[in-house]
Amino acid sequence: MPYTLPTAVRSYHLGAGEGTGRLSLRTRPPRRPGPGQVAVAVRAASLSYRELLVLRGRYVLPVAPDVVPVSDGAGEVVAVGPDVHRVRPGDRVTANLFPLWLDGPLEPARLPQLGGTLDGMLTELAVLPADALVPVPEHLSYAEAATLPCAAVTAWNALTGDGRGVRPGQTVLATGSGGVSLFTVQFAKLLGARVIVTTGDRARERRLREVGADEVVDHRAVPDWHTAARELTGGLGVDRVVDTAGTLQQSLRAVAVDGHVALVGSVSGDWTPVDPRLLFGAAATLRAVAVGSRAQFAAMNDMIAAHRTRPVIDRVFPFEEAAAAYRYYETARPFGKVVIEVR
Amino acid sequence: MPYTLPTAVRSYHLGAGEGTGRLSLRTRPPRRPGPGQVAVAVRAASLSYRELLVLRGRYVLPVAPDVVPVSDGAGEVVAVGPDVHRVRPGDRVTANLFPLWLDGPLEPARLPQLGGTLDGMLTELAVLPADALVPVPEHLSYAEAATLPCAAVTAWNALTGDGRGVRPGQTVLATGSGGVSLFTVQFAKLLGARVIVTTGDRARERRLREVGADEVVDHRAVPDWHTAARELTGGLGVDRVVDTAGTLQQSLRAVAVDGHVALVGSVSGDWTPVDPRLLFGAAATLRAVAVGSRAQFAAMNDMIAAHRTRPVIDRVFPFEEAAAAYRYYETARPFGKVVIEVR
Amino acid sequence: MPYTLPTAVRSYHLGAGEGTGRLSLRTRPPRRPGPGQVAVAVRAASLSYRELLVLRGRYVLPVAPDVVPVSDGAGEVVAVGPDVHRVRPGDRVTANLFPLWLDGPLEPARLPQLGGTLDGMLTELAVLPADALVPVPEHLSYAEAATLPCAAVTAWNALTGDGRGVRPGQTVLATGSGGVSLFTVQFAKLLGARVIVTTGDRARERRLREVGADEVVDHRAVPDWHTAARELTGGLGVDRVVDTAGTLQQSLRAVAVDGHVALVGSVSGDWTPVDPRLLFGAAATLRAVAVGSRAQFAAMNDMIAAHRTRPVIDRVFPFEEAAAAYRYYETARPFGKVVIEVR
Amino acid sequence: MPYTLPTAVRSYHLGAGEGTGRLSLRTRPPRRPGPGQVAVAVRAASLSYRELLVLRGRYVLPVAPDVVPVSDGAGEVVAVGPDVHRVRPGDRVTANLFPLWLDGPLEPARLPQLGGTLDGMLTELAVLPADALVPVPEHLSYAEAATLPCAAVTAWNALTGDGRGVRPGQTVLATGSGGVSLFTVQFAKLLGARVIVTTGDRARERRLREVGADEVVDHRAVPDWHTAARELTGGLGVDRVVDTAGTLQQSLRAVAVDGHVALVGSVSGDWTPVDPRLLFGAAATLRAVAVGSRAQFAAMNDMIAAHRTRPVIDRVFPFEEAAAAYRYYETARPFGKVVIEVR
Repeated sequence: MPYTLPTAVRSYHLGAGEGTGRLSLRTRPPRRPGPGQVAVAVRAASLSYRELLVLRGRYVLPVAPDVVPVSDGAGEVVAVGPDVHRVRPGDRVTANLFPLWLDGPLEPARLPQLGGTLDGMLTELAVLPADALVPVPEHLSYAEAATLPCAAVTAWNALTGDGRGVRPGQTVLATGSGGVSLFTVQFAKLLGARVIVTTGDRARERRLREVGADEVVDHRAVPDWHTAARELTGGLGVDRVVDTAGTLQQSLRAVAVDGHVALVGSVSGDWTPVDPRLLFGAAATLRAVAVGSRAQFAAMNDMIAAHRTRPVIDRVFPFEEAAAAYRYYETARPFGKVVIEVR
Repeated sequence: MPYTLPTAVRSYHLGAGEGTGRLSLRTRPPRRPGPGQVAVAVRAASLSYRELLVLRGRYVLPVAPDVVPVSDGAGEVVAVGPDVHRVRPGDRVTANLFPLWLDGPLEPARLPQLGGTLDGMLTELAVLPADALVPVPEHLSYAEAATLPCAAVTAWNALTGDGRGVRPGQTVLATGSGGVSLFTVQFAKLLGARVIVTTGDRARERRLREVGADEVVDHRAVPDWHTAARELTGGLGVDRVVDTAGTLQQSLRAVAVDGHVALVGSVSGDWTPVDPRLLFGAAATLRAVAVGSRAQFAAMNDMIAAHRTRPVIDRVFPFEEAAAAYRYYETARPFGKVVIEVR
Repeated sequence: MPYTLPTAVRSYHLGAGEGTGRLSLRTRPPRRPGPGQVAVAVRAASLSYRELLVLRGRYVLPVAPDVVPVSDGAGEVVAVGPDVHRVRPGDRVTANLFPLWLDGPLEPARLPQLGGTLDGMLTELAVLPADALVPVPEHLSYAEAATLPCAAVTAWNALTGDGRGVRPGQTVLATGSGGVSLFTVQFAKLLGARVIVTTGDRARERRLREVGADEVVDHRAVPDWHTAARELTGGLGVDRVVDTAGTLQQSLRAVAVDGHVALVGSVSGDWTPVDPRLLFGAAATLRAVAVGSRAQFAAMNDMIAAHRTRPVIDRVFPFEEAAAAYRYYETARPFGKVVIEVR
Repeated sequence: MPYTLPTAVRSYHLGAGEGTGRLSLRTRPPRRPGPGQVAVAVRAASLSYRELLVLRGRYVLPVAPDVVPVSDGAGEVVAVGPDVHRVRPGDRVTANLFPLWLDGPLEPARLPQLGGTLDGMLTELAVLPADALVPVPEHLSYAEAATLPCAAVTAWNALTGDGRGVRPGQTVLATGSGGVSLFTVQFAKLLGARVIVTTGDRARERRLREVGADEVVDHRAVPDWHTAARELTGGLGVDRVVDTAGTLQQSLRAVAVDGHVALVGSVSGDWTPVDPRLLFGAAATLRAVAVGSRAQFAAMNDMIAAHRTRPVIDRVFPFEEAAAAYRYYETARPFGKVVIEVR
């Protein structure tokens, strides 16, 4: 199939230095997709908390030197290499954060990731394994689709990826109003759950309810927010906590007997050790969630498409202002995702 | 707890004779709820295909002589007997069709049913086991809630009651536009599926799409509708058929390899024998669905509440015109449920 | 990796004619394994009912002209092609009957099969996709391992392949004492079930009990064996029937409410149509079982290895007497598998 | 049904004081079973680690003053109260540790327990809720059956009670050779797993292998036993740890990516806090196991019965020497359960 790749491709690379000073924009000739590979003209990328950790050199998984950062993006297939049957030029796609994790459980061999050991999406042209691609739901723009790979798949996995999954009528608590939390609220409602969200910013209550929250707990007014969570559940505790803040002690106090705490990360960077007696007392399950497989991404997209769910976007930056986007994401406490339009 | 029961209660009873001639309206003193029982002032009842079978003496399960017919209804708790803790006067409730089937698999001891071996809902005051009751979702009227026990629970079970359940992105086919089919369309969409509906009435296409159908197949234009189903799925066949028509031969031709056919009944009264080779060729599963447990009813209600789903009602009759409601249900091919308002 | 393939390879091929007259033994030069392929020196092959259907031209799936027959075999890896990492020379292996069906549900693209559309195991040297191979449990001989791919995997799938699976304490009924039934008895016991077997040969009772049967029903003495099955279960019926005889009407009468009938095939060649009312009356599930995936084969082998389970072998024939093996299998009503030692 | 209760019943009660000094043997008239209750002539009781915690006043759940201690026992039904249909005099039974937890998830209302808030089994006659009883497998003696309620059900739950459960071919690691660990070894083998056990006593290796261990790791020789566990699994780590020692840091280092750690308790009394980063790095699940439901107990018994599994008993004491049994259990590091024969 004939196609024309651009003659030059601009990409950000991650170098030495501090903070966004590590980002350098460089131009190189386009890579041609090899067997099983696809060239994607990236239209939008999106920032997650992981990008700050990568930038700070504190990410939990290895990061290659000079890598093109950012795991999340969406674009159009412009060229396919030999032996590619899943997609064709013109297809609108995103890619799974772990391109080798297609289905089933996570395994060590499936850990390479975009914007980490592999070049990511902060580029005009990404060359990706065809197997990693996931079609963009029809009703979503590229900017919206770019927000999904890390935060949305994580939220979906946190709610559905254990053997049981959230059942209609259960209560889910999301900590804070970061990217994973907003998706948690949206998906938990789709799955028929009642949703409680904590926030330290009372002004966000209205917007959180618009996204779907049934109850909003102000954790400045109620620092021991687990007591509020218990009150809102008749003393029983919530069935599932999606903890993005690393506040496991409180999550375990908020969770019902036989409940589930999905540990998504620690936005605070704080990893207070967990007293096993809390876990034992609640007879609870504590599960670390590492984004998800391509199959989970695809199932989530099908659910999003059926309900015409739209991600919340806070602000969009042009490609040339990627560094400003990072700084905004880090400091402005956005409500919704920060997107970088690529072209 | 003090309460006042009405001094007289009107109920329909099922006697000898033919068709609606078997219905007689009689007045008797109210029954007082015994231990574990609850008196419910019925506000609305609703007809399902089973009521026609009961009337015709062709129902698959036993029917007691002189029984108060109709399994489906909703009302307000007005009195509770000793040892009742699940509900209290003022609660808005429906009841599970099998009042003894609370959770887990169906067992022979759980087969007694409302409007069959036990008095049903075509009465001003029903005395029911407290354990059978299910709260009415807040956003629903009594008329809407009365439509749920038979058709909606059946559809929910057909979609979710096997070990696997419908997954987002799968394709579900519902045969016809009867009560179970309309709920199937609504629930399949909630679960993230793509939905195909067959109908013999082209004029219904728009309304079926409004309820949520992605594709409508006219089975008068395409009597071998399974070929249309295959075309709409790229030749693969649909993942799940909810067959309310007894058209199993076609359902098995429409279903994908390793697919699922939920056999809900036969509106046509036709039970064409199934060639096992069709089943074998598709490597398919064929499952008979017998409404569902109270736990399934409750989970469905939670899903309905989270999405503020509303049942489709075709027409509402007053209590005194119950016989006319039966005749209308039997002959008018309603689109949506037929409801009898009780008071 | 250096290796020496034999200079000549003898294989049976399936030609025109009738019965075993269709088998011709021919010698050809060895095929060299291509990328992703493996050459296996077959040590033993084994006959299943499918081989008779293939011979008679009545198999449900396509059979290539001049194909090397027999899906079941075991041998030693002697050479591997490029890009093969799963096995190496010296490994003892069997192959999945559907070499492309690795995991998850059966799909149309996964239907090519050994001894059908692809050359099978009645040969001295089979060239197979590396992905299809399954290690032989240590405690099994090649002859024993050769019995597993069709009958044992089918039995395993029949017991565990639906969403629920057999649970400890349930009752399983196997019809007859063919290959699938004997494995069903063995696996059902491993899974903690109580097992009933039907047989028309009273002399087999002792041996069936030795294999693990808890109850043996003589279907000559009790032609309506479903009544015996009901009596043995206190009237409730059995939880699961593994029906290899095509006796679905009786199986549906024997199965408990909400029970499961796994339809494995019809040894009798008889496909009596099924009355849907029987299925409906039992609220049962009827599932067609098409052998299984490589993942199911591997899980079964792990279970076999943990319990040191041994397949039952009736008789072993030398490679040169393959036609006699077929005739014996067809006429002698063997108790256990018929094996052809290859070299 | 006529029956004769004994004229006097001897029971141990838990009073003030220290250690076994808190046990006092008293005689009282027999209690008559009320509605839904059953009188069981206890034949054997058995000690678990929980009994030491109860004695020391350090048990995690409430303990009633003057309670009859010991959750585990087995005996014969001698009298049934009104409305009891599940058992009859002469039946051999054990009771679930949580008599109100029949099935499904643990809930706060189901937490009352034998030998804690309710009188336990260190008595000649226990009056128990009929719903709590579980039949004793035929092949087991009363002494053997008495060992099951706490340790065996805990091990069964640890292996099967999450949504996934152990699959054939997975690797399970049990810490130490206490009661739960020995049952873990036995059940993991029944489920088709490979089993690694840690021990600090090299002399136990042979006996651990006899019970079913595939590998024994000497944690005195290898204090960082997780490194040994990794070596034994090709670097991947074990699929599931059943941690009875509270050594969660090591368990999380031993477990595979996406693996499962069942936290059963802390024999050491040591509850070292867990670093969430360890959990996060392994993408693991950490689940607290609180014995199990009656349904889990029954399923376990069915599995035990099918395989004729026998619990390991270290030593049997007469009823009069219960205090000696406690001291032996506490100090002698028994290999297998310590049983007190009641009469």
